[in-house]
Amino acid sequence: MTPAPMLAALGRDLAGIVGAAHVLSGDTPPYGEDASHDRVGLHGVADAVVRPADADEVRRVVAWCYEHEVPIVPRGGGSGLAGGAVPVAGGVVVAMERMTAVRSFDAPLWRAEIEAGLSTADVIRLGRESGLLFPPNPGAVEQSQIGGNVATNAGGPRAFKYGVTGNWVTGLEVVVAPGELIRVGGARRKDVAGYDLRGLFVGSEGTLGIVTSVWLRFVPAPAASLRLATFYEGAAAGCAAIERLVGNGVVPAALEYADEGAVEIGRPSFPGGLAPAARFAVLIELDGSQADVAAQRAETLEALADGAVATVVAADAREGAELWRWRDGLSSAVTAVRGGRLGEDIVVPLDRLEDVIAEVVRIAARHGLDACSWGHAGDGNVHANFLVGAHDVQAQRAAGAAAVELCDYAVSIGGSISGEHGIGWLKRGRLERHQGPVVAGIHAAIKAALDPKNLLNPGKKT
Amino acid sequence: MTPAPMLAALGRDLAGIVGAAHVLSGDTPPYGEDASHDRVGLHGVADAVVRPADADEVRRVVAWCYEHEVPIVPRGGGSGLAGGAVPVAGGVVVAMERMTAVRSFDAPLWRAEIEAGLSTADVIRLGRESGLLFPPNPGAVEQSQIGGNVATNAGGPRAFKYGVTGNWVTGLEVVVAPGELIRVGGARRKDVAGYDLRGLFVGSEGTLGIVTSVWLRFVPAPAASLRLATFYEGAAAGCAAIERLVGNGVVPAALEYADEGAVEIGRPSFPGGLAPAARFAVLIELDGSQADVAAQRAETLEALADGAVATVVAADAREGAELWRWRDGLSSAVTAVRGGRLGEDIVVPLDRLEDVIAEVVRIAARHGLDACSWGHAGDGNVHANFLVGAHDVQAQRAAGAAAVELCDYAVSIGGSISGEHGIGWLKRGRLERHQGPVVAGIHAAIKAALDPKNLLNPGKKT
Repeated sequence: MTPAPMLAALGRDLAGIVGAAHVLSGDTPPYGEDASHDRVGLHGVADAVVRPADADEVRRVVAWCYEHEVPIVPRGGGSGLAGGAVPVAGGVVVAMERMTAVRSFDAPLWRAEIEAGLSTADVIRLGRESGLLFPPNPGAVEQSQIGGNVATNAGGPRAFKYGVTGNWVTGLEVVVAPGELIRVGGARRKDVAGYDLRGLFVGSEGTLGIVTSVWLRFVPAPAASLRLATFYEGAAAGCAAIERLVGNGVVPAALEYADEGAVEIGRPSFPGGLAPAARFAVLIELDGSQADVAAQRAETLEALADGAVATVVAADAREGAELWRWRDGLSSAVTAVRGGRLGEDIVVPLDRLEDVIAEVVRIAARHGLDACSWGHAGDGNVHANFLVGAHDVQAQRAAGAAAVELCDYAVSIGGSISGEHGIGWLKRGRLERHQGPVVAGIHAAIKAALDPKNLLNPGKKT
Repeated sequence: MTPAPMLAALGRDLAGIVGAAHVLSGDTPPYGEDASHDRVGLHGVADAVVRPADADEVRRVVAWCYEHEVPIVPRGGGSGLAGGAVPVAGGVVVAMERMTAVRSFDAPLWRAEIEAGLSTADVIRLGRESGLLFPPNPGAVEQSQIGGNVATNAGGPRAFKYGVTGNWVTGLEVVVAPGELIRVGGARRKDVAGYDLRGLFVGSEGTLGIVTSVWLRFVPAPAASLRLATFYEGAAAGCAAIERLVGNGVVPAALEYADEGAVEIGRPSFPGGLAPAARFAVLIELDGSQADVAAQRAETLEALADGAVATVVAADAREGAELWRWRDGLSSAVTAVRGGRLGEDIVVPLDRLEDVIAEVVRIAARHGLDACSWGHAGDGNVHANFLVGAHDVQAQRAAGAAAVELCDYAVSIGGSISGEHGIGWLKRGRLERHQGPVVAGIHAAIKAALDPKNLLNPGKKT
């Protein structure tokens, strides 16, 4: 605990930078939590929360904290699942919510510079209104902020065709230690002068600097899109269908799956009902020109046909949205079964998808738990969920052990412990275990080079 | 100069690692030069050239050099234009040419692991034979090696639609100081555990480690493609056409230009001849399904029509190849005018393309030089060329000054000093000037963290 007189000085000095109205103290919701709270109850109390109005205020806050050796915890929309934005050890939370300016938007050139605090949904809408697509959509887009998406290199279903958030970032404005505002990249689409610092800040979860503004690329929105689902009796047939689709050269915008456990839980809510034999779901989004989508649809249905026990092709955008709502709703449906769940976010090579889906259930069983999974099949990104009671401490402990085992398994087959949620606080301390001492040493050396006092989101992403 | 006894010891020790047949000493072509030699005569003499057979030999060579404080100069195909592979201050050249194994290739999963020394052409062929496209094609693909392409994050015409080489790299095997073999990423398509070290090594020009093997993504090859060229009376009309095309939402695979000076020099060799009013070229490659290419063709021709004085649509692949050969031939045609040229590789935001094309000629004129440019218009990547006699030292000096001025101009309008050729040796010392002391300091800190003895390609990319 920071002593009261020091807290008072901190509040006064920070108020001098951002204004008294924008310094909050005490345990102020929602700043003590992110979306991991609902799963594992993570909660922290900041020494203060500041809400800067612009990049220069962020710079001055960081400079003050760096001088006074106070930890700095950057915060976007708080939709993260790894505790990255939670002030687990006090410090100053820098909440970006007031920095929502669209500094520039050149629709004919497919680009914009946007402050970090604008919601991802607003970024997507900005493009859409001008006929452009901002492809990354990691979910929770009304809550999440573009700066947080960049800081976590967020993914989502469309990453299969379009890549992750970082692929759409051409430049960043960042406040770095000990309180400097820098720009890396910009409106230009390419740049090989110097190391790829842009790429280094992307996904660094606020441990190397605070992103205050981002230069984004868009693409012309495809004229047409189509969503469909096919169901199989199990993961073997479903994964075979997925591999056939990919092997036949179809490039869906999204290629998702839900395993037997998830489909069972979601069965009552599937639009129009679901045959009992339909136990493993493959969900597809196609996009492109009208002609292209028609051709892809035919190829897709052909590739998926073998073993399919049910096929639902959305007749229009409304039905497509219903299908996606069902898939997005799996998360809360699964949570509702026991009142809680522990989610893991591993990623494996695509040809190991079937193995890892089975392993989720096997590992859970060994720990006396039920589990299911769904995720971004095309990217081999598996959201594994261990079902636990909200207050069942013993089950939660078992789920924690199962999750670590699952991560070990993912790494052992050429995968990684996080496909898109990040390391944050919940997976801290795993890097050396999974990537070895040399890589972990490089990681630590980079952190020390950019944050010598270890004040930028300390303890996270290690 | 390294003393003779030390050279003998070095040769003996290195022979113990890679075999005597694979240690060369003296001024051994081609290892003292890269493609910058033809332009600026850069030449270096290594203490030794080693040609390792595998990653472990690379590791042992690096370990030996690190222990004995001998500089290490990694070398791919030697097609670089910035002197990055030239042993300007001696040291050991590590030539990757024997490491050409395709360690794995999973065509149905669109991926391969390939050793660094395989030629880019072989990588492209490997994909093509299985119906896959490896999009990056920076030119000189028979000579260049995939490891060098990764180390420079090479671009090329298709980067507009498909992104640069780094976008296609999911993992790397790298030898880092003081002689360790590490893996970052792999066959998995996503990974947010830890900082993006994969991205950090990509484009680092051998100054942070030696890439020994790369995991690459491919995409299913588009069924159809089409090349066409339109000509305008000048850059104003041509750049307006380019902006109309982009603004109308067409996404060509490639969107190239050649300015008035380049078209004039290339005029005699244009297939089928060229009307005198055709003075600025816009070259386009479209790809996709048959239906898509047909639709894009119509949209493209409509968008480009205003002000066009000549339009050439390739009737088939042969004619398309002819068009591209003409464009690729501009380089040697321009060199032939005076016997030499100094090339610059700046990149600017697309809306500044017309400005920078004019500025190339203006800056050259102020230095008493002729100049022209061509490049990847869609990416704002301008290859500016100052025409100089091969032995005209005064003109070469003037061109050097003009090039620096042009880089300053590019940075002043939101651009960068290199879009794809890199910093290498020829642009050393410019980072602080163009990116400021804080960014240059971060750059230096990262270099020091990964290469504390400054032995990995020292002096390059600074």
